[in-house]
Amino acid sequence: MTDPFDPADAERRGRFLAEPFAVLATHGPGGRLDLVPCCFALDPVDGALVTAVDHKPKRHQRLARLANVEADPNVSLLADHRDPDDWSALWWIRVHGTGRVVAGGPEHERAVAALAAKYRQYRERPPHGPVIRIVPLRWSGWSP
Amino acid sequence: MTDPFDPADAERRGRFLAEPFAVLATHGPGGRLDLVPCCFALDPVDGALVTAVDHKPKRHQRLARLANVEADPNVSLLADHRDPDDWSALWWIRVHGTGRVVAGGPEHERAVAALAAKYRQYRERPPHGPVIRIVPLRWSGWSP
Repeated sequence: MTDPFDPADAERRGRFLAEPFAVLATHGPGGRLDLVPCCFALDPVDGALVTAVDHKPKRHQRLARLANVEADPNVSLLADHRDPDDWSALWWIRVHGTGRVVAGGPEHERAVAALAAKYRQYRERPPHGPVIRIVPLRWSGWSP
Repeated sequence: MTDPFDPADAERRGRFLAEPFAVLATHGPGGRLDLVPCCFALDPVDGALVTAVDHKPKRHQRLARLANVEADPNVSLLADHRDPDDWSALWWIRVHGTGRVVAGGPEHERAVAALAAKYRQYRERPPHGPVIRIVPLRWSGWSP
Protein backbone atom coordinates (compact mmCIF):
# COMPACT_ATOMS: atom_id res chain seq x y z
CA MET A 1 0.00 0.00 0.00
CA THR A 2 1.01 3.58 -0.51
CA ASP A 3 1.47 5.50 2.66
CA PRO A 4 3.43 8.33 4.13
CA PHE A 5 6.08 7.21 6.53
CA ASP A 6 8.21 8.63 9.21
CA PRO A 7 11.72 9.50 8.05
CA ALA A 8 12.90 7.82 11.24
CA ASP A 9 11.79 4.50 9.69
CA ALA A 10 15.33 3.18 9.36
CA GLU A 11 14.46 0.04 7.41
CA ARG A 12 12.73 1.92 4.62
CA ARG A 13 15.27 4.72 4.53
CA GLY A 14 17.98 2.10 4.29
CA ARG A 15 16.31 0.36 1.36
CA PHE A 16 15.84 3.68 -0.40
CA LEU A 17 19.44 4.73 0.08
CA ALA A 18 20.78 1.37 -1.08
CA GLU A 19 19.11 1.62 -4.52
CA PRO A 20 21.72 2.57 -7.13
CA PHE A 21 19.42 4.75 -9.23
CA ALA A 22 16.51 7.07 -8.65
CA VAL A 23 14.48 9.39 -10.86
CA LEU A 24 14.65 13.10 -10.17
CA ALA A 25 11.67 15.24 -11.17
CA THR A 26 11.91 18.99 -11.54
CA HIS A 27 9.55 21.65 -12.82
CA GLY A 28 10.53 22.63 -16.36
CA PRO A 29 9.37 25.68 -18.30
CA GLY A 30 5.76 25.83 -19.45
CA GLY A 31 4.36 23.37 -16.93
CA ARG A 32 6.59 20.57 -18.20
CA LEU A 33 7.66 17.81 -15.85
CA ASP A 34 11.33 17.06 -16.35
CA LEU A 35 12.50 13.59 -15.39
CA VAL A 36 16.02 12.24 -15.32
CA PRO A 37 17.52 9.13 -13.78
CA CYS A 38 20.29 9.90 -11.34
CA CYS A 39 22.64 8.52 -8.75
CA PHE A 40 22.11 9.80 -5.25
CA ALA A 41 23.41 9.56 -1.71
CA LEU A 42 22.77 10.89 1.77
CA ASP A 43 24.89 13.61 3.34
CA PRO A 44 25.08 12.29 6.91
CA VAL A 45 25.90 15.71 8.33
CA ASP A 46 22.53 17.32 7.66
CA GLY A 47 20.44 14.53 6.12
CA ALA A 48 20.26 16.12 2.66
CA LEU A 49 19.93 13.88 -0.37
CA VAL A 50 22.55 14.75 -2.95
CA THR A 51 22.99 14.14 -6.65
CA ALA A 52 25.68 15.39 -9.02
CA VAL A 53 25.97 16.58 -12.55
CA ASP A 54 28.72 14.13 -13.25
CA HIS A 55 31.72 13.93 -15.50
CA LYS A 56 29.89 13.18 -18.71
CA PRO A 57 29.78 16.08 -21.14
CA LYS A 58 27.28 18.67 -20.01
CA ARG A 59 24.65 19.15 -22.66
CA HIS A 60 21.67 21.40 -22.49
CA GLN A 61 19.42 19.01 -20.57
CA ARG A 62 21.91 18.68 -17.72
CA LEU A 63 21.97 22.39 -17.36
CA ALA A 64 18.18 22.46 -17.73
CA ARG A 65 17.94 20.35 -14.62
CA LEU A 66 19.92 22.90 -12.65
CA ALA A 67 18.02 25.86 -14.10
CA ASN A 68 14.76 24.15 -13.17
CA VAL A 69 15.77 23.76 -9.53
CA GLU A 70 16.91 27.36 -9.38
CA ALA A 71 13.58 28.54 -10.79
CA ASP A 72 11.43 26.23 -8.66
CA PRO A 73 12.95 24.30 -5.73
CA ASN A 74 10.09 21.77 -5.52
CA VAL A 75 11.57 18.43 -6.52
CA SER A 76 10.77 14.75 -6.10
CA LEU A 77 13.03 11.74 -6.02
CA LEU A 78 11.70 8.23 -6.62
CA ALA A 79 13.61 5.00 -6.04
CA ASP A 80 11.76 2.00 -7.42
CA HIS A 81 12.96 -1.53 -7.02
CA ARG A 82 12.44 -3.44 -10.24
CA ASP A 83 11.93 -7.11 -10.99
CA PRO A 84 10.19 -7.82 -14.31
CA ASP A 85 9.64 -11.47 -13.40
CA ASP A 86 8.28 -11.08 -9.90
CA TRP A 87 5.89 -8.21 -9.36
CA SER A 88 5.47 -9.22 -5.73
CA ALA A 89 9.08 -8.04 -5.19
CA LEU A 90 8.41 -4.50 -6.43
CA TRP A 91 8.45 -1.54 -4.09
CA TRP A 92 9.10 2.15 -4.32
CA ILE A 93 9.91 5.02 -2.05
CA ARG A 94 9.43 8.65 -2.92
CA VAL A 95 10.65 11.86 -1.33
CA HIS A 96 9.29 15.32 -1.89
CA GLY A 97 11.72 18.05 -0.98
CA THR A 98 13.39 21.36 -1.61
CA GLY A 99 16.32 21.39 -3.98
CA ARG A 100 19.27 23.77 -4.14
CA VAL A 101 22.21 23.90 -6.55
CA VAL A 102 25.65 24.04 -4.94
CA ALA A 103 28.73 24.51 -7.10
CA GLY A 104 31.51 24.57 -4.50
CA GLY A 105 32.47 24.85 -0.85
CA PRO A 106 32.00 22.43 2.06
CA GLU A 107 28.46 21.39 1.08
CA HIS A 108 29.74 20.46 -2.37
CA GLU A 109 32.66 18.54 -0.89
CA ARG A 110 30.40 16.58 1.47
CA ALA A 111 28.07 15.70 -1.40
CA VAL A 112 30.95 14.43 -3.54
CA ALA A 113 32.28 12.42 -0.59
CA ALA A 114 28.86 10.84 0.04
CA LEU A 115 28.52 9.91 -3.65
CA ALA A 116 32.05 8.50 -3.75
CA ALA A 117 31.32 6.39 -0.65
CA LYS A 118 28.33 4.81 -2.43
CA TYR A 119 29.59 4.51 -6.02
CA ARG A 120 32.83 2.95 -7.25
CA GLN A 121 32.51 4.99 -10.45
CA TYR A 122 32.60 8.23 -8.46
CA ARG A 123 35.60 7.02 -6.47
CA GLU A 124 37.43 6.40 -9.71
CA ARG A 125 36.35 9.70 -11.20
CA PRO A 126 34.85 12.23 -8.78
CA PRO A 127 32.09 14.45 -10.17
CA HIS A 128 33.29 17.98 -10.80
CA GLY A 129 30.02 19.64 -11.75
CA PRO A 130 27.47 21.25 -9.46
CA VAL A 131 25.45 19.12 -7.08
CA ILE A 132 21.80 19.35 -6.16
CA ARG A 133 21.12 19.12 -2.45
CA ILE A 134 17.58 18.10 -1.50
CA VAL A 135 16.10 18.70 1.94
CA PRO A 136 13.53 15.89 2.34
CA LEU A 137 10.13 17.16 3.43
CA ARG A 138 7.81 14.19 2.94
CA TRP A 139 8.50 10.50 2.49
CA SER A 140 6.05 7.98 1.11
CA GLY A 141 6.31 4.48 -0.17
CA TRP A 142 4.56 1.51 -1.63
CA SER A 143 5.01 -2.20 -1.39
CA PRO A 144 2.63 -5.05 -2.29
CA MET B 1 23.96 13.26 -25.27
CA THR B 2 20.47 14.49 -24.57
CA ASP B 3 18.57 15.46 -27.62
CA PRO B 4 15.06 15.61 -28.96
CA PHE B 5 14.34 12.95 -31.51
CA ASP B 6 11.84 12.23 -34.18
CA PRO B 7 9.12 9.82 -33.07
CA ALA B 8 9.69 8.08 -36.39
CA ASP B 9 13.08 6.95 -35.01
CA ALA B 10 12.08 3.28 -34.88
CA GLU B 11 15.18 2.05 -33.10
CA ARG B 12 14.77 4.38 -30.13
CA ARG B 13 11.01 3.94 -29.95
CA GLY B 14 11.58 0.20 -29.98
CA ARG B 15 14.06 0.36 -27.11
CA PHE B 16 11.70 2.57 -25.12
CA LEU B 17 8.72 0.28 -25.65
CA ALA B 18 10.70 -2.83 -24.74
CA GLU B 19 11.58 -1.55 -21.25
CA PRO B 20 9.40 -3.28 -18.66
CA PHE B 21 9.05 -0.29 -16.37
CA ALA B 22 8.83 3.46 -16.68
CA VAL B 23 8.22 6.32 -14.28
CA LEU B 24 5.08 8.39 -14.74
CA ALA B 25 5.13 11.99 -13.52
CA THR B 26 1.95 13.95 -12.93
CA HIS B 27 1.23 17.34 -11.40
CA GLY B 28 -0.05 16.89 -7.86
CA PRO B 29 -1.77 19.48 -5.67
CA GLY B 30 0.26 22.42 -4.42
CA GLY B 31 3.00 22.27 -7.04
CA ARG B 32 4.00 18.78 -6.00
CA LEU B 33 5.55 16.43 -8.55
CA ASP B 34 4.00 12.99 -8.23
CA LEU B 35 6.11 10.08 -9.43
CA VAL B 36 5.14 6.43 -9.69
CA PRO B 37 6.76 3.53 -11.48
CA CYS B 38 4.42 1.88 -13.96
CA CYS B 39 4.08 -0.66 -16.71
CA PHE B 40 3.22 0.75 -20.11
CA ALA B 41 2.56 -0.23 -23.69
CA LEU B 42 1.73 1.28 -27.06
CA ASP B 43 -1.75 1.23 -28.53
CA PRO B 44 -0.89 0.55 -32.17
CA VAL B 45 -4.19 1.95 -33.40
CA ASP B 46 -3.52 5.59 -32.50
CA GLY B 47 0.03 5.56 -31.09
CA ALA B 48 -1.06 6.41 -27.54
CA LEU B 49 1.05 5.18 -24.64
CA VAL B 50 -1.10 3.40 -22.10
CA THR B 51 -0.74 2.46 -18.46
CA ALA B 52 -3.25 0.86 -16.11
CA VAL B 53 -4.29 1.08 -12.52
CA ASP B 54 -3.88 -2.61 -12.06
CA HIS B 55 -5.37 -5.34 -9.94
CA LYS B 56 -3.61 -4.43 -6.73
CA PRO B 57 -5.81 -2.79 -4.12
CA LYS B 58 -6.50 0.81 -5.01
CA ARG B 59 -5.25 3.06 -2.26
CA HIS B 60 -5.31 6.79 -2.18
CA GLN B 61 -2.13 7.33 -4.20
CA ARG B 62 -3.42 5.30 -7.13
CA LEU B 63 -6.50 7.44 -7.21
CA ALA B 64 -4.35 10.53 -6.74
CA ARG B 65 -2.56 9.68 -9.98
CA LEU B 66 -5.88 9.66 -11.84
CA ALA B 67 -7.12 12.84 -10.15
CA ASN B 68 -3.84 14.55 -11.07
CA VAL B 69 -4.23 13.73 -14.77
CA GLU B 70 -7.82 14.91 -14.72
CA ALA B 71 -6.79 18.21 -13.13
CA ASP B 72 -3.72 18.74 -15.34
CA PRO B 73 -3.14 16.57 -18.40
CA ASN B 74 0.57 17.42 -18.69
CA VAL B 75 2.45 14.22 -17.96
CA SER B 76 5.89 12.76 -18.57
CA LEU B 77 7.00 9.18 -18.93
CA LEU B 78 10.64 8.16 -18.49
CA ALA B 79 12.13 4.77 -19.34
CA ASP B 80 15.68 4.43 -18.10
CA HIS B 81 17.84 1.43 -18.75
CA ARG B 82 19.82 0.55 -15.64
CA ASP B 83 23.09 -1.20 -15.11
CA PRO B 84 24.81 -0.43 -11.79
CA ASP B 85 28.04 -2.06 -12.93
CA ASP B 86 28.41 -0.51 -16.35
CA TRP B 87 27.46 3.14 -16.61
CA SER B 88 28.39 3.11 -20.29
CA ALA B 89 25.33 0.90 -20.88
CA LEU B 90 22.90 3.42 -19.40
CA TRP B 91 20.39 5.26 -21.54
CA TRP B 92 17.02 6.87 -21.07
CA ILE B 93 14.14 8.04 -23.20
CA ARG B 94 11.51 10.49 -22.08
CA VAL B 95 8.15 11.46 -23.50
CA HIS B 96 6.15 14.55 -22.70
CA GLY B 97 2.50 14.21 -23.52
CA THR B 98 -1.14 14.77 -22.74
CA GLY B 99 -2.83 12.25 -20.48
CA ARG B 100 -6.45 11.23 -20.25
CA VAL B 101 -8.20 8.77 -17.92
CA VAL B 102 -10.38 6.17 -19.63
CA ALA B 103 -12.50 3.81 -17.55
CA GLY B 104 -14.23 1.74 -20.23
CA GLY B 105 -15.15 1.34 -23.89
CA PRO B 106 -13.02 0.51 -26.93
CA GLU B 107 -10.07 2.71 -25.89
CA HIS B 108 -9.93 0.93 -22.54
CA GLU B 109 -10.14 -2.47 -24.25
CA ARG B 110 -7.31 -1.62 -26.64
CA ALA B 111 -5.15 -0.43 -23.76
CA VAL B 112 -5.73 -3.62 -21.80
CA ALA B 113 -4.97 -5.69 -24.92
CA ALA B 114 -1.71 -3.80 -25.52
CA LEU B 115 -0.64 -4.30 -21.89
CA ALA B 116 -1.55 -8.00 -22.01
CA ALA B 117 0.47 -8.42 -25.21
CA LYS B 118 3.54 -7.04 -23.43
CA TYR B 119 3.18 -8.46 -19.90
CA ARG B 120 2.60 -12.06 -18.89
CA GLN B 121 1.23 -10.81 -15.56
CA TYR B 122 -1.53 -8.89 -17.33
CA ARG B 123 -2.35 -11.90 -19.51
CA GLU B 124 -2.82 -13.95 -16.36
CA ARG B 125 -4.82 -11.24 -14.63
CA PRO B 126 -6.06 -8.41 -16.84
CA PRO B 127 -6.21 -4.97 -15.22
CA HIS B 128 -9.76 -3.93 -14.43
CA GLY B 129 -9.17 -0.38 -13.27
CA PRO B 130 -9.05 2.78 -15.36
CA VAL B 131 -6.22 3.33 -17.81
CA ILE B 132 -4.29 6.48 -18.57
CA ARG B 133 -3.83 7.13 -22.29
CA ILE B 134 -0.98 9.47 -23.18
CA VAL B 135 -0.69 11.23 -26.52
CA PRO B 136 3.08 11.70 -27.00
CA LEU B 137 3.98 15.27 -27.90
CA ARG B 138 7.76 15.37 -27.54
CA TRP B 139 10.37 12.65 -27.34
CA SER B 140 13.89 13.09 -26.05
CA GLY B 141 16.63 10.76 -25.01
CA TRP B 142 20.12 10.38 -23.66
CA SER B 143 22.85 7.85 -24.17
CA PRO B 144 26.54 8.09 -23.36
